[in-house]
Amino acid sequence: MTGAPYGAAFTQWRAGCPDAWHAYTHHAFVEGLRDGSLPRPAFLHYLVQDYVFLVHFARAWSLAVVKAETLDEMKICAGTVNALVNHEMALHVQTCAGEGINEAALYAACEEVENLAYTRYVMDAGLQGDFLDLMAALAPCCFGYGEIGLRLARSAAPDTPHRAWIDTYADDGYQSVMTSVGQMIDGAISRRLGPDPVRAPRWAHLQNRFSTATRLEIGFWDMGLRGS
Amino acid sequence: MTGAPYGAAFTQWRAGCPDAWHAYTHHAFVEGLRDGSLPRPAFLHYLVQDYVFLVHFARAWSLAVVKAETLDEMKICAGTVNALVNHEMALHVQTCAGEGINEAALYAACEEVENLAYTRYVMDAGLQGDFLDLMAALAPCCFGYGEIGLRLARSAAPDTPHRAWIDTYADDGYQSVMTSVGQMIDGAISRRLGPDPVRAPRWAHLQNRFSTATRLEIGFWDMGLRGS
Amino acid sequence: MTGAPYGAAFTQWRAGCPDAWHAYTHHAFVEGLRDGSLPRPAFLHYLVQDYVFLVHFARAWSLAVVKAETLDEMKICAGTVNALVNHEMALHVQTCAGEGINEAALYAACEEVENLAYTRYVMDAGLQGDFLDLMAALAPCCFGYGEIGLRLARSAAPDTPHRAWIDTYADDGYQSVMTSVGQMIDGAISRRLGPDPVRAPRWAHLQNRFSTATRLEIGFWDMGLRGS
Amino acid sequence: MTGAPYGAAFTQWRAGCPDAWHAYTHHAFVEGLRDGSLPRPAFLHYLVQDYVFLVHFARAWSLAVVKAETLDEMKICAGTVNALVNHEMALHVQTCAGEGINEAALYAACEEVENLAYTRYVMDAGLQGDFLDLMAALAPCCFGYGEIGLRLARSAAPDTPHRAWIDTYADDGYQSVMTSVGQMIDGAISRRLGPDPVRAPRWAHLQNRFSTATRLEIGFWDMGLRGS
Repeated sequence: MTGAPYGAAFTQWRAGCPDAWHAYTHHAFVEGLRDGSLPRPAFLHYLVQDYVFLVHFARAWSLAVVKAETLDEMKICAGTVNALVNHEMALHVQTCAGEGINEAALYAACEEVENLAYTRYVMDAGLQGDFLDLMAALAPCCFGYGEIGLRLARSAAPDTPHRAWIDTYADDGYQSVMTSVGQMIDGAISRRLGPDPVRAPRWAHLQNRFSTATRLEIGFWDMGLRGS
Repeated sequence: MTGAPYGAAFTQWRAGCPDAWHAYTHHAFVEGLRDGSLPRPAFLHYLVQDYVFLVHFARAWSLAVVKAETLDEMKICAGTVNALVNHEMALHVQTCAGEGINEAALYAACEEVENLAYTRYVMDAGLQGDFLDLMAALAPCCFGYGEIGLRLARSAAPDTPHRAWIDTYADDGYQSVMTSVGQMIDGAISRRLGPDPVRAPRWAHLQNRFSTATRLEIGFWDMGLRGS
Repeated sequence: MTGAPYGAAFTQWRAGCPDAWHAYTHHAFVEGLRDGSLPRPAFLHYLVQDYVFLVHFARAWSLAVVKAETLDEMKICAGTVNALVNHEMALHVQTCAGEGINEAALYAACEEVENLAYTRYVMDAGLQGDFLDLMAALAPCCFGYGEIGLRLARSAAPDTPHRAWIDTYADDGYQSVMTSVGQMIDGAISRRLGPDPVRAPRWAHLQNRFSTATRLEIGFWDMGLRGS
Repeated sequence: MTGAPYGAAFTQWRAGCPDAWHAYTHHAFVEGLRDGSLPRPAFLHYLVQDYVFLVHFARAWSLAVVKAETLDEMKICAGTVNALVNHEMALHVQTCAGEGINEAALYAACEEVENLAYTRYVMDAGLQGDFLDLMAALAPCCFGYGEIGLRLARSAAPDTPHRAWIDTYADDGYQSVMTSVGQMIDGAISRRLGPDPVRAPRWAHLQNRFSTATRLEIGFWDMGLRGS
């Protein structure tokens, strides 16, 4: 099998950095979620950092609304921001509350260097470049989690304690948002780079954005495993 | 009476530019909406430009999410972006469709200089300054329309053809969002400038942002009256 | 004759909006500089607004350094910022001082709506788009003043009191900077859009940036003529 | 002794994170420069990464011009950008060329995660906040290198091979620029926060910017020591 079907650009970008993509989506952290062997402190450390990540990820999708050039781009990005800020972060808060970590503590958590590097790289991709630069940097997280969710939903140990995490991303709702985001990105690329974007001079640059963000995802899992 | 109650900062800012505020909220264009004397071409010209305005206004509220520093700020701003992009713009599109103007035409309309000046000034207030600079530049539109809506709902001619426009802003939903936005702004100011913000060195600068945006609102009505 | 030779992109963009370009570069304000008939109050009004313009123009060229993606782009843009802030603005200040207007007064001058519209449109072109969007919006001012300077140096009335203004832009130094900027822009375009940029899907968008900025230049001269 | 005298804000910020400041300015990497024990591969690795750092540092100082609100702020920041891009980077290139590393290779070097984290954090401090947020994030690099340069110039082993590096930052030119930057920052703070800025509500936030950037400086030296 060849990974999740979130559109042409994603398929191309993923094929452009196969080793990094595999290292990200089959990371020991992910395998620990799948077979249930992930140490609890590692999971909690990840959860807290991931909340801070979501804050900046929502900021980055907001920057995408600032940079959008069509109604369709604006609508998808604005919907994503709202889903992140007013729904997904709330879910995260609930999970963390169950572990005795309250929202203010989450918001104020000290960011690890891997978290800073990833989120601020994405923000700066948007400031330095255009809408496509930002999309290429946002794509690995969105689509990678979708792909991991799908794979783990099929293959996770029945007794893994991380079923709720897996379901969040395997969920039809998440998957259908990813399909819309993939279509929107394909449209955005085609409007700016034409029908054969891979031959456009900017393609290598966009691939580099995607590959760098994928590399930073690997670092994020490493950080999770390292624990606090 | 002294205008709509959207919080302490707004009350202060409005009192800081009374002539401009009156010229904006009691502009001949507004009086034309109230008594029904506004020429139809002026209203249509305004509607089209206002749609383009909303696009950039939504971009500016998205920039506010980028610049927010607390969860509460993020949530209010993200909700506003979503309301603008996925609801208010749709209403506008409906109204315009009733006049035979479709959405693509709206999005592509040639922006008048008054529209460019206002919307890009607000965006740049956000890029140059911090969250408060952006809020001070966004406030006149939000709160001014709320205040105009309330006044016209009480005083409009029974047969004005602009009842729907008036109701949009006099509406409890709009008013309650404005109350939340006002509270959020007061909180944002207090967190950054302390309990006596009017004495903070930055206050004159923020007042200048508000006054300039108010001046640009007057220009926007002038443009509407001028017709296309 | 075909205008000043500042590179392929400029030649193309200028040809893409011939009427607006002519209205800008042969505006009554320009003709008044040429034959000496420009009323003094109009010139002074323009000078003060142009100083405020330079402040934001320098900010826009700084944003270009933020958005640059090669060393060459960074070097040219950083040199331009420094020339604007630490030299050209000083010249302007000198001229204004000769008219009894000091620098603080200049910096604090109330911006006319045409000035706000133009400068903030350019800033936002940079925030919304990429380096090319910003270059297309910056080009009309840079190259148009160069072209006007050259034409007026050849054709101005011997007794026009505006010889110093004309010389500023006809000057070899200014012309040679414009040649470098033109080459840099051509390189930047070729790196991003390939050898046949006019056929790239983004070209119409860039032309629109250039045409809009040209239209805003016309408004700037109108404002000058209107006086304070 | 109490460190280098670059103004009141710096003195305060440094005192606000004494352990991190000491860990940064007396890092094993720095001691290796001082006594000459730093392994050559570590120094070369650092040099290449530092070049990439300078690129983004110049972008951040350019963002400061975008965000400046007075002439003095603009002039100092624009001069710094120009010094970085058109002089300091050239020196760096020369040093690297002596080691057989050319400029294109430098510009294209793969950024380490510590480098990404630091530079993009600074950029985003500017995008999210105002001029002061950006200054607080830029200060540790500027002033820390000045302080290290001064200390090492007095105490370095006579035969350390890193005398040229030390001189770059101990140099009167560098020191005098740092004094100007420190004065400019003090003025910028006083204009925005008043005569007693440490009691302003935003002070803790600015201290956090400075402390975070200092922490990221420590990571940068760690990365240098680790080698490529």
